[in-house]
Amino acid sequence: MSAPMTVTTDARTLAAQVAKHVDPARLLASIATLASFGARDDGGVNRPALSETDLRARAWLIDQARALGCDIHVDDCANLFFRRAGTEDLPPVVTGSHADTQPTGGKLDGCYGVLAGLEVLAALADAGVRTRHPVDVVVWTNEEGTRFQPGAMGSSAFVDPARLPRYLAATDAAGVTLATAIDAHRNALPGLSPREAAAPMQAFVELHIEQGPLLEMAGAPLGVVDGIQGVSWYDVHCAGSAAHAGTTPMAARRDAMSLACAVRAEIEALASDLGGDLTRVTFGRWSIVPNAINTIASNVTFSIDFRHPDPAVLDAFDRALAQCVTRHGVRAEALFVNPPVAFDASVLTHVREACDTLSDKVPTLTSGAFHDAMYLARHCPTAMLFVPSRDGISHNPAEATDDAHLVLGARALAHCIASLSQPL
Amino acid sequence: MSAPMTVTTDARTLAAQVAKHVDPARLLASIATLASFGARDDGGVNRPALSETDLRARAWLIDQARALGCDIHVDDCANLFFRRAGTEDLPPVVTGSHADTQPTGGKLDGCYGVLAGLEVLAALADAGVRTRHPVDVVVWTNEEGTRFQPGAMGSSAFVDPARLPRYLAATDAAGVTLATAIDAHRNALPGLSPREAAAPMQAFVELHIEQGPLLEMAGAPLGVVDGIQGVSWYDVHCAGSAAHAGTTPMAARRDAMSLACAVRAEIEALASDLGGDLTRVTFGRWSIVPNAINTIASNVTFSIDFRHPDPAVLDAFDRALAQCVTRHGVRAEALFVNPPVAFDASVLTHVREACDTLSDKVPTLTSGAFHDAMYLARHCPTAMLFVPSRDGISHNPAEATDDAHLVLGARALAHCIASLSQPL
Repeated sequence: MSAPMTVTTDARTLAAQVAKHVDPARLLASIATLASFGARDDGGVNRPALSETDLRARAWLIDQARALGCDIHVDDCANLFFRRAGTEDLPPVVTGSHADTQPTGGKLDGCYGVLAGLEVLAALADAGVRTRHPVDVVVWTNEEGTRFQPGAMGSSAFVDPARLPRYLAATDAAGVTLATAIDAHRNALPGLSPREAAAPMQAFVELHIEQGPLLEMAGAPLGVVDGIQGVSWYDVHCAGSAAHAGTTPMAARRDAMSLACAVRAEIEALASDLGGDLTRVTFGRWSIVPNAINTIASNVTFSIDFRHPDPAVLDAFDRALAQCVTRHGVRAEALFVNPPVAFDASVLTHVREACDTLSDKVPTLTSGAFHDAMYLARHCPTAMLFVPSRDGISHNPAEATDDAHLVLGARALAHCIASLSQPL
Repeated sequence: MSAPMTVTTDARTLAAQVAKHVDPARLLASIATLASFGARDDGGVNRPALSETDLRARAWLIDQARALGCDIHVDDCANLFFRRAGTEDLPPVVTGSHADTQPTGGKLDGCYGVLAGLEVLAALADAGVRTRHPVDVVVWTNEEGTRFQPGAMGSSAFVDPARLPRYLAATDAAGVTLATAIDAHRNALPGLSPREAAAPMQAFVELHIEQGPLLEMAGAPLGVVDGIQGVSWYDVHCAGSAAHAGTTPMAARRDAMSLACAVRAEIEALASDLGGDLTRVTFGRWSIVPNAINTIASNVTFSIDFRHPDPAVLDAFDRALAQCVTRHGVRAEALFVNPPVAFDASVLTHVREACDTLSDKVPTLTSGAFHDAMYLARHCPTAMLFVPSRDGISHNPAEATDDAHLVLGARALAHCIASLSQPL
């Protein structure tokens, strides 16, 4: 199965009509409404996956989809699918994202992609356009990974159902399992049609806020996302010897923090040397023992988050890190690795076409953050598009995107979903 | 009042006799017995100040002193004084230390000085030596500062009684005030003679384990301690901006941890430049916010513990630090300062004489740790002497000193106390 590589003139014309039928007021109102489920006093949103708040939000989303004439499906990981029928029995073109948030999250991360998807269905209806393929809007479960670990549970379990039994046993901070939370979802939202995991898809397109500053720095209202950079996470363990800060001469010390700072500096330099401007390296989490003002540290552990779009650079970093820690007599513990994802060229053709129709300044960029599309890319032709994040801020109540950009992003999504689903 | 500047030949001979009467078996047995009060399974000692364990230890110490014919005195901060009478009504020559320990403390820190003091009284008796000055062995209250803050409460309240009301209101982790703990001490150990705070002393000499590696590195069994280095404590507050580790280009970051590491490195270099080999600088306590693997740090605070024996170097460090933090746009918060203490030349003459009688290799060093003698130096002519700490380890169950060094230290103390108290 592959997405059509070319966009016909007729399809292009119809896609442009659908894009025009995106209704700014309706889109912005839906964003405001969804944000009211779990609204924080500081303007942010706190909506843990499958929480009582999330179930109410999902009930509202289902109402919206039903009003658009959709069939509602649910799979065993509580992923919701809102289907606008096609004229033929073909795999759906799918868009959407997630509706759970960080505890101090904003209104847009995930939610924007879901609501823009619903807006696309409304625009298709308003434009009177029928499509050969069904168009599904999906709400993936627990993308944030805050209530249950790991994140992107819904999309990864859909793509690889063998993961589900392990996920169902995951517990939240209160000891509630995902299985119990999914039972609550089933009871709160009864009567939905079942959807099989790994059901075929024609294509998946995810619209998301950038969560970084690149589009804003470029003055661009949209971005074509060609993939997701790879990541390696490590903990580096540095051992020294606790000793009295007053009595121990500098030359006699084995200060684990001095060692850790030296190793950190060397890793930062080699990450930059290997990966150039595309390197993202962060040493964000530190544990210092005994962490006392007048005692030399005996043990320091710090994390490395290294990201790069080029798998060769990720491999080179792993090798250089191994040499570096050996040289310093410290230990690197691999925590997590995810190779870079390159999105599908044919779907990117549709995304590029859609964006170029709407703006003359649309850069291509690689996503720095993980998204459900990372897993969907293993399942079907997949791509993403971004709108700017004001000041690059996300996972924060201050998360914001200009209304004009939100509307333009939904229009581009509508254009691209329409052309992929073969309008008639 | 000043200590005698010279040691007469007769006094020297008598002092040497007293030193010879130090009984190794008796001294080592007393160290083992005191360590049994609050003994830990790992060989260490846990004896919080004025705890029930400490009260039983003090009762045992009082029994030992009574057996030596001492009068027992106590002041309002529960400092205990064991007096061997002199032939004249003169201020006492005082030795001793403290008997409280760290929670994971060893057998020697503080206790050794108290028990060596009692051994000196025994040696004076065994040698049949009478002295013009009374000789007091003191047990200072709460030197460690673990149960009640600050440390060295007993010695500092003795020297400066105006501190006592504030100390009495200090509470331990269970909410018990020092005042209540002192009441319990009074009830458990009734009938002791009162001693006025700030009562005159002829001299104070404190024998202690080094708690550092210098004597061991020098292969010396004893050290004359000429003072206590000064200390400045700071917290340095570095502000950045939290952002996504994957989406934020390196050039767009304001990483508080990168800033903190750069400032730390610069402070370490300037501390070394200003203070040379005598510098002790430690960055032991760190707070990183949000301390997450995939989020750039928004705020980092780290501590500075800077020590040096030269007040001019401490002043220069304070000035250089102020310039450094201004240059980096961070903030230094002064937490604590204690100027260097230079011990009394006349008492040091007696300590040097005593040590040189017993060993041909006795270096002079400056204490890197605080001691009760730091406060006593404000009250009367004061000095200290050290024995080596194996591997420089202290505040640890593994704290140890060779038996031969413990005995030699007690002999040196006996020599010096005998000569200071003017033996007849």
